[in-house]
Amino acid sequence: MSPQRRSGLGTNQEAIRRHNLGTLLRHVHGAGQISRAELTTLMGLNRSTIAGLVGELESLGISERATAPEGARQGAGRPSAGVRIAQDGPYVIAVDLGVDRAVVARVGLGGQVLQRAQAPVSSDGEAWQVGAAVAALIRAVVEDVPGSSSLVGIGISVPGLVRRSDGLVRLAPNLEWHDVSFGGIVLAALGLDIPVSIANDADLGALAEHTRGAGVGVDDLIYVSGNVGVGAGVIAGGHRLEGAGGYAGEVGHLRFNPDGRPCHCGNQGCWETEVGAHAIAEAIQCPAAKVAQLDEVLDGFDQASPELRATGTALGQGLASIVNSFNPQLVVLGGYFRSLYRLVSTEVNAGLADRALPAPLESVTLALPGLGADSALLGAAEIALEPLFVDPVAALGTALDDVQARLAG
Amino acid sequence: MSPQRRSGLGTNQEAIRRHNLGTLLRHVHGAGQISRAELTTLMGLNRSTIAGLVGELESLGISERATAPEGARQGAGRPSAGVRIAQDGPYVIAVDLGVDRAVVARVGLGGQVLQRAQAPVSSDGEAWQVGAAVAALIRAVVEDVPGSSSLVGIGISVPGLVRRSDGLVRLAPNLEWHDVSFGGIVLAALGLDIPVSIANDADLGALAEHTRGAGVGVDDLIYVSGNVGVGAGVIAGGHRLEGAGGYAGEVGHLRFNPDGRPCHCGNQGCWETEVGAHAIAEAIQCPAAKVAQLDEVLDGFDQASPELRATGTALGQGLASIVNSFNPQLVVLGGYFRSLYRLVSTEVNAGLADRALPAPLESVTLALPGLGADSALLGAAEIALEPLFVDPVAALGTALDDVQARLAG
Ligand SMILES: [Zn+2]
Ligand SMILES: [Zn+2]
Repeated sequence: MSPQRRSGLGTNQEAIRRHNLGTLLRHVHGAGQISRAELTTLMGLNRSTIAGLVGELESLGISERATAPEGARQGAGRPSAGVRIAQDGPYVIAVDLGVDRAVVARVGLGGQVLQRAQAPVSSDGEAWQVGAAVAALIRAVVEDVPGSSSLVGIGISVPGLVRRSDGLVRLAPNLEWHDVSFGGIVLAALGLDIPVSIANDADLGALAEHTRGAGVGVDDLIYVSGNVGVGAGVIAGGHRLEGAGGYAGEVGHLRFNPDGRPCHCGNQGCWETEVGAHAIAEAIQCPAAKVAQLDEVLDGFDQASPELRATGTALGQGLASIVNSFNPQLVVLGGYFRSLYRLVSTEVNAGLADRALPAPLESVTLALPGLGADSALLGAAEIALEPLFVDPVAALGTALDDVQARLAG
Repeated sequence: MSPQRRSGLGTNQEAIRRHNLGTLLRHVHGAGQISRAELTTLMGLNRSTIAGLVGELESLGISERATAPEGARQGAGRPSAGVRIAQDGPYVIAVDLGVDRAVVARVGLGGQVLQRAQAPVSSDGEAWQVGAAVAALIRAVVEDVPGSSSLVGIGISVPGLVRRSDGLVRLAPNLEWHDVSFGGIVLAALGLDIPVSIANDADLGALAEHTRGAGVGVDDLIYVSGNVGVGAGVIAGGHRLEGAGGYAGEVGHLRFNPDGRPCHCGNQGCWETEVGAHAIAEAIQCPAAKVAQLDEVLDGFDQASPELRATGTALGQGLASIVNSFNPQLVVLGGYFRSLYRLVSTEVNAGLADRALPAPLESVTLALPGLGADSALLGAAEIALEPLFVDPVAALGTALDDVQARLAG
């Protein structure tokens, strides 16, 4: 065998080992704490291989030993040693950009929010102004970071269509953005060179709810987000449905009432014109200035007007089109739909039952987000953490330590 | 190491070998003929492993040696030996059940139709009568089968909603079927015990167009089928989008015109009521008795009436909802939409461009099926062949030889 081929083989084995290391870390990340015995079962590897991988994660400062909880003894033997996410391990920055405010968090493995900050953003501001505001929030959330912790990357959720290939924001209608390279703008404002991932808010809501929210273990779910506009994120067969360019899930522009109100997309009577924030604001006579805080306004109501009940019916009827098209097991109602659903669940359920086909209707459940208002934020953290689950060694190799000092400089 | 663990290891290696054997067969099936060098590259295995797998497929009677085509020489060395599907190898029965006729074919690996037959079925017949007619067609297409060839299974396409877990036809509106176990009915009529797979016609159209039609290499495609009713099959990220129960793609019941005609689903103005066969028949004053042959009727036209052009616009507008929801790279227009699109492509394209969002519109192409009228039929063959690509040894172990004699008896 030639030296070249031997080195090829070695590279292959190393790639498999790193893949296994990443998969193991994904399990620890999902569970928060997990026993070696469970890892052995989940991964189909033998105990000594698992022990080796766990040891490597520990030496990388990613995980640490945990005593097994009471009752977790393996038969009559010793309790299986546990693995948990290390204190002060690697972290990411998650950004949830709304139309009137940005929420930024420092998030560790296990989905733990370690520090958070938020500030208003002006919906008629330029993208670079929004980028500067986000950069200031990022500086704020790394203030207390220990020097030994390192930053793996930044994940950003935007209320718009994001091109998968390069993260370009093709359209964010309520920010009036067209073809904005927002990831680059944020990095420039920070003066850092670090991986940035950026995606649509509803797509990230779906991802987070699937990973650690209302949809854990559910392979077919849809997260429908009311965030001024209306969009959906789809998990199908356990994977994100992205579409050819990354734009799948634009259900806000489903044809709903061809004689209806004009939509910003140029059509008339899209579903969004009936259940979007502006339509709801009109139904409850909420002033235009408060449309972006529609969830809080709705939370102030204790019963629904007939107009709001009609909106609930329209929400259910539109969900029927989604249920017929995607046949999800779970539909999670995010954004201001959380608040709306509390008031008009009867109408939403009736509208859905009235219009969905019996077969897909049978198996679907509507639910509120398990992560409350943080679905998109934690989804942004997930995409930023993803490189750690592909190859932890490589991801840590490009991670930045002493970020606080670098940003202060 | 205990004997038990050694046997566990052996089983694991055997499982990997069979998995590789199935994957190699999938490549040969897709290409029809392929060189060992290509297989080595595609599978990332070394040449001797590939040679061993190829030898095993040959000894199973599945593949045979092929001389490499001219020009396929590997550098200055000998031409890489080729592999192709064996004559008289295993085959499947594919059934495409329409609302007025059944088409049945004997199909070999490589998607080769070896024998075919068709007969009218009565749309008001009982399911057992349809099953008897299909069984008679199956007897006809195995008449010339060589005794050494064996039947792997039966695949059936139905115009309706099929429960994935057990193949129950929940609803086939134009056959007036509710909860029909059609696979079992066909097997009973044949007196055979053999694997039967059954699925929705549009789902199978999508699968076949992806495997060997207009969508080879396209990871995100939608096959929209006009087959009296209207439905879609979706390939997303290279995989079939099935949904929780197997019902995904019921786009015929997207809300289109809330003041429109009543739909059999109980709603008013579903998209199907505007672009379904009955609506088109009305637009072209086609008698009700010929609705099931709408494709042939449309093929007789050489220009479109204003009514038909309006149908084309409605088709494009509905496709816009699909494009916004799924962001496909390719939309294949199957069933009578093939004939309709030839007449009103301008209106379809304009309706789509008018209503789709710019970002998903940019990357989508409309196309006619690469497999003509056979998309669903060949998709039915694909699902019946699937066990061969999972584990060829096991699939051949349960295959039936001498089927002609068994069915004659
Ligand atoms: Zn719109
Ligand atoms: Zn309908």
